[in-house]
Amino acid sequence: MIVTLLTDFGDFYPGVMKGVILSLAPETRVVDICHTVEPQNVLQGAFLLYNSYRFFKSAVHVAVVDPEVGSERRAIAVKTKNHVFIAPDNGIVYPSASEDGIERVYEIDLSISKLVGELSYTFHGRDVFAPAAALAVRGDLWKFCNEIEDMKKLELFDYKIESDRIVCRVVFIDRFGNLVTNLKAKDINAKRFYLKGIEFPLVKTYSDVKIGEPLALIGSFGTLELSVRNGNASELLGIDKGGVEIELEVS
Amino acid sequence: MIVTLLTDFGDFYPGVMKGVILSLAPETRVVDICHTVEPQNVLQGAFLLYNSYRFFKSAVHVAVVDPEVGSERRAIAVKTKNHVFIAPDNGIVYPSASEDGIERVYEIDLSISKLVGELSYTFHGRDVFAPAAALAVRGDLWKFCNEIEDMKKLELFDYKIESDRIVCRVVFIDRFGNLVTNLKAKDINAKRFYLKGIEFPLVKTYSDVKIGEPLALIGSFGTLELSVRNGNASELLGIDKGGVEIELEVS
Amino acid sequence: MIVTLLTDFGDFYPGVMKGVILSLAPETRVVDICHTVEPQNVLQGAFLLYNSYRFFKSAVHVAVVDPEVGSERRAIAVKTKNHVFIAPDNGIVYPSASEDGIERVYEIDLSISKLVGELSYTFHGRDVFAPAAALAVRGDLWKFCNEIEDMKKLELFDYKIESDRIVCRVVFIDRFGNLVTNLKAKDINAKRFYLKGIEFPLVKTYSDVKIGEPLALIGSFGTLELSVRNGNASELLGIDKGGVEIELEVS
Repeated sequence: MIVTLLTDFGDFYPGVMKGVILSLAPETRVVDICHTVEPQNVLQGAFLLYNSYRFFKSAVHVAVVDPEVGSERRAIAVKTKNHVFIAPDNGIVYPSASEDGIERVYEIDLSISKLVGELSYTFHGRDVFAPAAALAVRGDLWKFCNEIEDMKKLELFDYKIESDRIVCRVVFIDRFGNLVTNLKAKDINAKRFYLKGIEFPLVKTYSDVKIGEPLALIGSFGTLELSVRNGNASELLGIDKGGVEIELEVS
Repeated sequence: MIVTLLTDFGDFYPGVMKGVILSLAPETRVVDICHTVEPQNVLQGAFLLYNSYRFFKSAVHVAVVDPEVGSERRAIAVKTKNHVFIAPDNGIVYPSASEDGIERVYEIDLSISKLVGELSYTFHGRDVFAPAAALAVRGDLWKFCNEIEDMKKLELFDYKIESDRIVCRVVFIDRFGNLVTNLKAKDINAKRFYLKGIEFPLVKTYSDVKIGEPLALIGSFGTLELSVRNGNASELLGIDKGGVEIELEVS
Repeated sequence: MIVTLLTDFGDFYPGVMKGVILSLAPETRVVDICHTVEPQNVLQGAFLLYNSYRFFKSAVHVAVVDPEVGSERRAIAVKTKNHVFIAPDNGIVYPSASEDGIERVYEIDLSISKLVGELSYTFHGRDVFAPAAALAVRGDLWKFCNEIEDMKKLELFDYKIESDRIVCRVVFIDRFGNLVTNLKAKDINAKRFYLKGIEFPLVKTYSDVKIGEPLALIGSFGTLELSVRNGNASELLGIDKGGVEIELEVS
């Protein structure tokens, strides 16, 4: 069974989670999706999970972007048609789980941490979510679970389209400086986008414009991306954080 | 059998080590703990290993922070109660090995590099420590080992406590800008810490203070951490390197 | 069977590729070589692949540094004596494949993307190269392949040696700030190198000079490296990008 990990933990902490998982469920295959989600950016975590989980046939997906760790927020496990999602109850797994088809939602009892050691106030990735993933692999997570009715919702594709402008969000900036927005391909009728006075013509692929020129395209997330061919749109526009709302003029 | 890797190598070099390990011991499961230890910061490497090895039931732990590579420093393998540690003899594995219970200490003969190719002067991670890990997995590392009496020691929890001040060290700064110190929970009696004129009240968890406010807590390492809720203590204090000695006023 | 991944994708995208690979060939062992190749630096990708592939006994190596993604450039699979290389046809695998001994070269039909979903214009790592790797593991990649005669060539060791100067390239800068050049050990007769007025004496290992002093040595790539002992040559010289041509005076 595969366990995927998606966090904002950076290096080191995920290695500890793997120790916990492999100690409790030695045959697990742990796959890193991403550990560089912007700190505490739950929306970005949700967006990246939504765009990766479906490329796994069936897996336990652990997603920990958890600004409220140590507070009363719940830890949840969600059984969907093909997957299990384990996360803090802050909406991070909602778009993925609801797309795949939610079957049951459980609250994970924090006493599960006794399988690891003492419950810390700051690292439930290690103390709660990692052992929960291992037990999900073994099929006995349910010993530490109570079924609940609801989970926190989160809407990824929340934007406003008018005749001459679109207000959407930059949800992810990749290593090439491409600005990935949450604006879905099906909602795009324009041929040109303008931001901070710069024109981004909508093209099919990078090589449709000259090297160094700005462009817009439908990227691999199925949403609008603003790019510079062999360049860096993030630097060009001075936008270096995900979550930023942008107002695009269109024509 | 699991082999963990902890280095200051960054990207690329650990991939080469995995090639060596998997060529010699194909069934090994290699798990990355961390490859972003600050360059040549042996204390930080020792601290991170100490806080991760125990979450593995039993493993071969390779820890390479090695400022003296190419010199006469020894390469060692340490058999402890539950684990094997493989590292340059600079103290990096000492706190972990001595906690788990040292059974035997061996010097690794550099001729082990013949299993890989020619011995380089700069990358013993590839030429010495990786093949040593593979042979430890296979159970025949001892062909390239001589038992020795001693190993280099290193003290992680070396700090000075007075009535109104504590001199300890920042040993790790995580991706959230939390300053992790080496000051153990059991040695903390104060309720407030002051550094550079800023007050850090000791609380249980982040949500005990308002967003943007400084705080101190016992973190997941079991030591004092200085943080800013949903903010960045490293930026606030202008401390961006591990190993720094800090003088905390306490009350 | 091992599949290695070497890209300029940074975090996240490689996790998606792993989902595709493991869904199609569940027993595969995926090993990350490096995902921080400088964006679109094909030469650097080729150099790092050349210096890692041989440490695997036999593997499918996926190398994606792909500035022309979405254009008409071909996707290729190269069967060599011990390995299979899968990449865009831009020369990235040529030095490795030709060293190991090219047996056959194939063009991969983009219709292979139907195993994943719709073909994107920007992420052939997910849509073409990942399923190709999985099918190579399963032994049925050839269903989507046509044998071709040629592949794009790329020369790693292209430099100019004169009596008093050498013009070569910095091909990789590691995390320690070491400048790795493409100048092979066998072509080095000098005892001292000078760049920007700084002398780099050729020594065997870091500890042959004092802490903080510059040095040159034959590094683990078998080529000349410029370093500063326990310091950072990249910062000292103001060279922070691979691919830069440098003119070394020698004596």
